[in-house]
Amino acid sequence: MISLPKTIRWHSRELFFLNQTLLPREVIEEKQESIKQVWDSIKKLKVRGAPAIGVAGAYGLLIGIKEKTSLKINDFLAEIERNVDFLGNARPTAVNLKWALNRMLDVAKKYSGENSKELFNILENEAVLIHKEDILLCQKIGENGLPLIEEGMGILTHCNAGSLATTGIGTATAPMYLANQNGTKFRVFANETRPLLQGARLTSWELSRIGLDITLITDNMAAHIMSQGLIDLVITGTDRVAANGDVANKIGTHGVAILAKHFGIPFYVACPYSTIDFNTSKGEKIEIEERENKEVTNFFSYRSAPEDIKVRNPAFDITPSELVSGLITEKGIIKFPNKENLSKAYN
Amino acid sequence: MISLPKTIRWHSRELFFLNQTLLPREVIEEKQESIKQVWDSIKKLKVRGAPAIGVAGAYGLLIGIKEKTSLKINDFLAEIERNVDFLGNARPTAVNLKWALNRMLDVAKKYSGENSKELFNILENEAVLIHKEDILLCQKIGENGLPLIEEGMGILTHCNAGSLATTGIGTATAPMYLANQNGTKFRVFANETRPLLQGARLTSWELSRIGLDITLITDNMAAHIMSQGLIDLVITGTDRVAANGDVANKIGTHGVAILAKHFGIPFYVACPYSTIDFNTSKGEKIEIEERENKEVTNFFSYRSAPEDIKVRNPAFDITPSELVSGLITEKGIIKFPNKENLSKAYN
Repeated sequence: MISLPKTIRWHSRELFFLNQTLLPREVIEEKQESIKQVWDSIKKLKVRGAPAIGVAGAYGLLIGIKEKTSLKINDFLAEIERNVDFLGNARPTAVNLKWALNRMLDVAKKYSGENSKELFNILENEAVLIHKEDILLCQKIGENGLPLIEEGMGILTHCNAGSLATTGIGTATAPMYLANQNGTKFRVFANETRPLLQGARLTSWELSRIGLDITLITDNMAAHIMSQGLIDLVITGTDRVAANGDVANKIGTHGVAILAKHFGIPFYVACPYSTIDFNTSKGEKIEIEERENKEVTNFFSYRSAPEDIKVRNPAFDITPSELVSGLITEKGIIKFPNKENLSKAYN
Repeated sequence: MISLPKTIRWHSRELFFLNQTLLPREVIEEKQESIKQVWDSIKKLKVRGAPAIGVAGAYGLLIGIKEKTSLKINDFLAEIERNVDFLGNARPTAVNLKWALNRMLDVAKKYSGENSKELFNILENEAVLIHKEDILLCQKIGENGLPLIEEGMGILTHCNAGSLATTGIGTATAPMYLANQNGTKFRVFANETRPLLQGARLTSWELSRIGLDITLITDNMAAHIMSQGLIDLVITGTDRVAANGDVANKIGTHGVAILAKHFGIPFYVACPYSTIDFNTSKGEKIEIEERENKEVTNFFSYRSAPEDIKVRNPAFDITPSELVSGLITEKGIIKFPNKENLSKAYN
């Protein structure tokens, strides 16, 4: 049985987040005492990863309202709406957070005939359901991606689309967890993923913890490692897939996809089917967040570049769909996910 | 007039290196008291860059033998050979260190009829000549590469093949220094160059110092920046070019070359003609130095990865000649530097 780090834990109506900003130096679970603290934890990336912050939002709402069940139902509902609005703004770009909160709000409205205590019970069940669905989604993505992993393979991944980004076995990592459970022997290479080092701090930590053969490299080593024949498959996650199959993901993904094409290595992207945004026609319509200079000029506390140097710091890039061999979703693998293949899949 | 940092200084038979491991936070010149210290400075990259460590090797030899001129000529020659062997092993990949040391040794053998004091004088003149030649070489490389730079261009460089890697205006940067002097307006993007951040610490420091429009990016941003049409030309340096045109250079160069090909951007490599090693048939024959894990798991003092994680840390990679648009040397530009074009150039 694999021992997974618990990204989010709900126990006796108390909420705990693993503080990912301290990993891998410290493994500390923090009890969330208030909705303000939950907001702060999401904002500061203590809990991160699109699927995980959806679950964090649903439970976070419960923390905001659990002491308010003595209110009359209308006041309780107003309190719920206030908390949903507040928490939804912790990370405005993350679609999953608002999605989970709106789902909770819809349930609250549907059961507004109940008393406040009973409604809280219903909402708790809904949050637990969202959590369970996330775990199941990861499992399904893992099962669908599993046939891609063969004995003796080398797999490259970028950033962290691992268990730490979800409440299950991750998205990009899900097939790896299952193949490892099955006793398949393979090697994983993790790009460290500058500037915030999610590969070094998170992916290499969680995969080494379950005993996978994991090797950490700097992002610029990928071409060399591929040229030595050590990589047979690339799997990454994604934050959003456009209707034409263009993939928005952590900065560096586009480069990895080009290298994979150059060396003839299949490049797969794992994500829940809901990540495909049919309202965004193509990648270039996706706004790319430009983050602060300090992430590039510094390594956390260590300044490595001249002060006041000009910097670019896009947090994401867009991988054109023609570089993507397939999307691994809970519904199956969508091969060559261009506009035509995406729109006909599962319709 | 451009004010350049003095990478290496020889003054009154004393040798000084600018300690590049402290840049850009501290600008400190260190006096080299012994050949052991010179070996250590080269090993620890206090002085680095293929051309610079050639010059450092020549002067370093003098430091090793300057107190030994009272020896009889045969013992003095044996001492020279011992020092040449010792210093030549400080770093395996760059051809310049061994080249400069062998040149010094050849001179020593040629003048073995002199007494030891006189031979030392001759060797000192030879080292000063190697130094002057390096300065001139950079200038010539700059002049030959200058026509590649056009008004309004964006140029990407990797690592530091700048003035800090030589004793002149650099190799890859030489055309940039001259174009800047001529008043041409262009932009440079510097890959930070993990793990040791020569791009962040050195290239962005020296180019901003002369007023160039320089932007620092992490290595994994290059594809995104290219996809936005911001790069028209790539120029890097090299530690060794094989007889078939394969280029050994700082880890990450191979990846940049693949990206440049993908986006149809010319990829040039600047180096002294002597960097072409006609005794090495192809890139895969070049030994690649694998450095210690800590460089990848840490950012200097800051540990960013789990302890005991498996790491790869090749210091160089090999860019196949078919990805190289041309070699910019002091003799001219060698276009498409494959085996045939290299062997017929300047013969």
